[in-house]
Amino acid sequence: MQPLGIALVGHAFMGRVHSQAWRTVGRVFPLARPVDLTVLAGTDADRVRRAADDLGWREGIGDWREAVLRDDVHIVDICTPGDSHAEIAVTALEAGKHVLCEKPLATSVAEAEAMALAARRAREQGVRSMAGFTYRRVPALALARKLVREGRLGRVLQFRARYLQDWLHDPDAPYSWRLDRTRAGAGALGDTGSHIVDLGRFLLDDPLDGVSAQLATFVESRRAPDGTEHEVTVDDAAVFTARFRSGALATFEASRFAAGRKNAIQLEISGTRGALAFDFESMNELSFYDATEPPGTAGFRRILVTEPGHPYLRVWWPPGHGLGYEHAFTHQAYDLLTGIADGTDPEPDFDDGLYVQRVIEAVETSAAASGTYTPVTGS
Amino acid sequence: MQPLGIALVGHAFMGRVHSQAWRTVGRVFPLARPVDLTVLAGTDADRVRRAADDLGWREGIGDWREAVLRDDVHIVDICTPGDSHAEIAVTALEAGKHVLCEKPLATSVAEAEAMALAARRAREQGVRSMAGFTYRRVPALALARKLVREGRLGRVLQFRARYLQDWLHDPDAPYSWRLDRTRAGAGALGDTGSHIVDLGRFLLDDPLDGVSAQLATFVESRRAPDGTEHEVTVDDAAVFTARFRSGALATFEASRFAAGRKNAIQLEISGTRGALAFDFESMNELSFYDATEPPGTAGFRRILVTEPGHPYLRVWWPPGHGLGYEHAFTHQAYDLLTGIADGTDPEPDFDDGLYVQRVIEAVETSAAASGTYTPVTGS
Amino acid sequence: MQPLGIALVGHAFMGRVHSQAWRTVGRVFPLARPVDLTVLAGTDADRVRRAADDLGWREGIGDWREAVLRDDVHIVDICTPGDSHAEIAVTALEAGKHVLCEKPLATSVAEAEAMALAARRAREQGVRSMAGFTYRRVPALALARKLVREGRLGRVLQFRARYLQDWLHDPDAPYSWRLDRTRAGAGALGDTGSHIVDLGRFLLDDPLDGVSAQLATFVESRRAPDGTEHEVTVDDAAVFTARFRSGALATFEASRFAAGRKNAIQLEISGTRGALAFDFESMNELSFYDATEPPGTAGFRRILVTEPGHPYLRVWWPPGHGLGYEHAFTHQAYDLLTGIADGTDPEPDFDDGLYVQRVIEAVETSAAASGTYTPVTGS
Amino acid sequence: MQPLGIALVGHAFMGRVHSQAWRTVGRVFPLARPVDLTVLAGTDADRVRRAADDLGWREGIGDWREAVLRDDVHIVDICTPGDSHAEIAVTALEAGKHVLCEKPLATSVAEAEAMALAARRAREQGVRSMAGFTYRRVPALALARKLVREGRLGRVLQFRARYLQDWLHDPDAPYSWRLDRTRAGAGALGDTGSHIVDLGRFLLDDPLDGVSAQLATFVESRRAPDGTEHEVTVDDAAVFTARFRSGALATFEASRFAAGRKNAIQLEISGTRGALAFDFESMNELSFYDATEPPGTAGFRRILVTEPGHPYLRVWWPPGHGLGYEHAFTHQAYDLLTGIADGTDPEPDFDDGLYVQRVIEAVETSAAASGTYTPVTGS
Repeated sequence: MQPLGIALVGHAFMGRVHSQAWRTVGRVFPLARPVDLTVLAGTDADRVRRAADDLGWREGIGDWREAVLRDDVHIVDICTPGDSHAEIAVTALEAGKHVLCEKPLATSVAEAEAMALAARRAREQGVRSMAGFTYRRVPALALARKLVREGRLGRVLQFRARYLQDWLHDPDAPYSWRLDRTRAGAGALGDTGSHIVDLGRFLLDDPLDGVSAQLATFVESRRAPDGTEHEVTVDDAAVFTARFRSGALATFEASRFAAGRKNAIQLEISGTRGALAFDFESMNELSFYDATEPPGTAGFRRILVTEPGHPYLRVWWPPGHGLGYEHAFTHQAYDLLTGIADGTDPEPDFDDGLYVQRVIEAVETSAAASGTYTPVTGS
Repeated sequence: MQPLGIALVGHAFMGRVHSQAWRTVGRVFPLARPVDLTVLAGTDADRVRRAADDLGWREGIGDWREAVLRDDVHIVDICTPGDSHAEIAVTALEAGKHVLCEKPLATSVAEAEAMALAARRAREQGVRSMAGFTYRRVPALALARKLVREGRLGRVLQFRARYLQDWLHDPDAPYSWRLDRTRAGAGALGDTGSHIVDLGRFLLDDPLDGVSAQLATFVESRRAPDGTEHEVTVDDAAVFTARFRSGALATFEASRFAAGRKNAIQLEISGTRGALAFDFESMNELSFYDATEPPGTAGFRRILVTEPGHPYLRVWWPPGHGLGYEHAFTHQAYDLLTGIADGTDPEPDFDDGLYVQRVIEAVETSAAASGTYTPVTGS
Repeated sequence: MQPLGIALVGHAFMGRVHSQAWRTVGRVFPLARPVDLTVLAGTDADRVRRAADDLGWREGIGDWREAVLRDDVHIVDICTPGDSHAEIAVTALEAGKHVLCEKPLATSVAEAEAMALAARRAREQGVRSMAGFTYRRVPALALARKLVREGRLGRVLQFRARYLQDWLHDPDAPYSWRLDRTRAGAGALGDTGSHIVDLGRFLLDDPLDGVSAQLATFVESRRAPDGTEHEVTVDDAAVFTARFRSGALATFEASRFAAGRKNAIQLEISGTRGALAFDFESMNELSFYDATEPPGTAGFRRILVTEPGHPYLRVWWPPGHGLGYEHAFTHQAYDLLTGIADGTDPEPDFDDGLYVQRVIEAVETSAAASGTYTPVTGS
Repeated sequence: MQPLGIALVGHAFMGRVHSQAWRTVGRVFPLARPVDLTVLAGTDADRVRRAADDLGWREGIGDWREAVLRDDVHIVDICTPGDSHAEIAVTALEAGKHVLCEKPLATSVAEAEAMALAARRAREQGVRSMAGFTYRRVPALALARKLVREGRLGRVLQFRARYLQDWLHDPDAPYSWRLDRTRAGAGALGDTGSHIVDLGRFLLDDPLDGVSAQLATFVESRRAPDGTEHEVTVDDAAVFTARFRSGALATFEASRFAAGRKNAIQLEISGTRGALAFDFESMNELSFYDATEPPGTAGFRRILVTEPGHPYLRVWWPPGHGLGYEHAFTHQAYDLLTGIADGTDPEPDFDDGLYVQRVIEAVETSAAASGTYTPVTGS
């Protein structure tokens, strides 16, 4: 059967992880149609050729548009910085290519709306689109959603979410483009906050109604490796309280200043019948409290999410043999391929990505208005 | 030497814990002057007599005023519901008695101001007053403050605080007076939120500048054990973001709906050189991340706070033999007695209690104003 | 009602903890008959008088025999070094006093046999005796036994026990009498190993059949604080494998060289239907794995053993407000007083103490015979 | 440059993991010479062809000898059941192929000796051999060894090792060939016990002097899926105490009956200056206790072994983005390729595999001799 050709745009950190996923997905999951790592696109032709070689792509070319429009390409995977997502995605969708686009979907609501519109139109032609909120594919989080849906928590009343990193906690850490609002869009809020906003919706199956926010920039300027001093124009940390449509109360924090926390996505969901807790630093574990147990033996149980019946686990290793960060990307690739094969839309789609963009905008609006509760528009 | 006579007002949960502390303090700590459990006061003469007998007091009487004004009473310890604190405390202070008053200090800022004024006046006469924010005396938290003061965290930039309980998570849990605003003052916010507000000030040695808050009442009416249905007029959960005067960013949550969390005071302090984390459910442990360690061996270390050099530990048991909830009350009694002996004021005093009251008021004001950032007045 | 008079012999570490228990037991537990802290006995009349004053005893006297034989003394609590247990206990039992004796019961099987014989004779006169294996009264361990008895683990197949401390891990730690076999009886094996031997029997309700052991002395001589060098004549660590009568397989380790472990009694029980795990350094927690749960949600659950329905908890504080090391001693006192009131024998009795002595002897015999499996005699 | 051709023999669980490693190693690590997944060998030609297709091999053939002897094959990777290791390995080595052989090396000491001899001879021809004790390549364990070697623990005095699984804890779990001694060689002892024996040597850089052991078979017969009843002829659990040559004391346990433990390789190393602890169920973490810290801030620190400076981590993801089980196999492949490129021998070699076999034999001998201490021969 003719394989599905992939064009991957971008070969930095995200491009490397996606490459590992595309190389692996067909080796562990049974696919309706095999995949082919057809072309890697970048901006510097030499560098992209070397990267293609390293990462296992047939070709590497310096022009993303050429890659995207090739006849032997059926799926376009966008791993570039956020400010180029819209153009690449719309081009690909209009050319009838399925698109997987890294998060955050765009650098503004307007861009995200354009992308979501293009995706909706393309959907009518059987073209699939997917936003790369990969943490949904961590088995422990997929299990969490399943338990919530099955009613194991009863009515969900509270959601707590933190995404903590610490690479800026040292005031002498160097300046980089990620601290420049014009290039990065937002700081901790957009980079990691977007993930927990998406996870809130995923886990509770409910969008946010509104937010009340504060942003902080603790270190106002930093020195670049070349010795020049630059103003930091993004947030170092974002904290906000929020309400889901259902009335559930939520707290969110994204920070790059949480010394000792490396990639700590810490979540807790409290319901009338139980609770769930998760920390990505122990990504193979989910804590579950079943409040219907007799009090004498109730307690948070640490579920090692490595059983064959757990989400995505059937194809991997025996119980207790944990997965790593990159596996969620392989699962994401598999879910996209399944959607393509089945003619169904994989979640999260571009509308879901647009929703996250709107929440980020509401957070910024609220923070600029002294924390006043700000509705999430249009969702 | 003549002992210091104690009058304890109240003999419910708090009265029992304070009794245990007064019985124990002179047996484990070296006191300048011994203490005498002179009189227990309550409202029902028969019940208080039985309680006095059970709890080890010489007498039990049904009139707090009589107890407070006795010549053989030097210290008045107030463990009654919040709405009687002001009258008892002011009476005692004006009579020249040292006062320990349970938290929250009062049910309004106005009351707390009157109490703080009385305490300031009494101080001039060498009379000591102390607010019962007992968690300051948990050795792990006393150690945390010491490490912050020694600069082990560098400049503190973020504070995260949750006080989670779950005794209301079940919508069928019965109504009680604690859910009636006129009797209880506030809900989770006042009851447990007040503790983490105090701990924030204690640990960072800095008051809050302002807050942005949301309150929630998830279950709007409940049935009492007698079958009658009552409206719930207090908050079930309170969430707020805040700024310390120093600029540090904070998040606070108090909840009675956090299924599986029994008395989880979860704190984290992030600084430029390190971080601390604590959970009261493991009260003998403090987690410390030293960011000045080489990255290869850095990590949150679990300090078992049971070494003889740790705060309060010299009088207790060998390393690894943990303390319990009530020990902090014995430490509190010891610190008050030390203040009396030395003529110095133990922390936290009534001004500190007033500060907490002002923060609670600001939280309620902000919540009523859609989360708008609200300064903490007067502090 | 006339109180039960207590004579406590010994006022070092154990005497201090027992004093706290005797002071507290009648204040928190409902007693059939009150207790009176009648007399503290020691060897140095001046020191014991001061100690009696500090610890809350009516009198302190320098002659244990006089204390033990007083008419107003009904219970004798022995907290002296092991080599005096037998004489004091037998004297007290023959005088018709109830006896609580610290562990290990004696320094030899012969002594323990004499004590057990005296206890059996006294029992016929309604006199109670109890060996101070206090960890049985830690609520989490009492709960563990309950779960085992209820069949929640199915058939128990394995028991793992470690008692780890680290006060000797530094080769320069000073010499003390505890390292002299003639005074201390044994090293880690007798001091802490005896506890886990007792806990094995308690938890599985089954004695050991035999053992295969190794002992180690890692540092063969140490310098005393006075500068003199002394040979270490006890074990620094003891490891042994064992079989219970039921066929269950066991591993035991006692060590004073486990750097970083302060008082880590680490236990795990594996059965056909579940498992339990415990670490005294987190003494308010019990981990329970219910293997009858569906694999998708099975996991070790952390039971916070602070619910009112948990063993001993009804008289203490609300859920989540943990207990400390000393509380088990108060529970022990309560269980002894209950036995006295009911005319039933509290566990563990002197026969149970004798059993532990026999296991220790078998361990030493096996170690001396190159680890050959050695039956536990007479039990 | 001509790639190194790989022949993989076996395509069950281990074959699948090794395939993932060979597919990945050249994509993430910089290799001196690329690798080629030349041929997969099995016993059933049809099944192996399909497996080759699935797993990414050029060809699948039903005759291992043919695969091994091909000119385009330079490395033979043996993932078959243990009873065929010797023949395949010796054939490959004599043909001048580098060999990676899964553990345990063989089913007897005699076989392992023949293999080690062949490896030593081949080494003179520049041929490399490696035993597949893959856990050495888990970054946390590689870091542990580094810390031991750097002296961070001082003199190592104790080693504790458990390898706990639970797939047999249910007496009704079905019979399989793994419970037949003639086919499986040994039970828990050989299968998982061999790993912790190897890790002991790896981490302490020291072989065992002797062992004192007990083996247990808790369920003596089981029913196969086809309804026939079979005797279980291997151990369900193995426990042994041991001495390293250095005098360090060790405890080992391998069990398939530890309910709730899925793949729990639990290690602890205690030294005069510190300690390390590890559990494979949290494979990205290493706990380190530095006893040279002041007691007030000493504690086991949880090192998240995901920093770029940690072993093998430079090529993977940013801090906090953990690795999974399979990554150790990729590291193993890389270390073998590095050895081939450099002309140095990767550890562990076949002599190391032979050592493990000798320890297993000593354990069985000791268990058969009532636990008598039994020297490990020849090492």
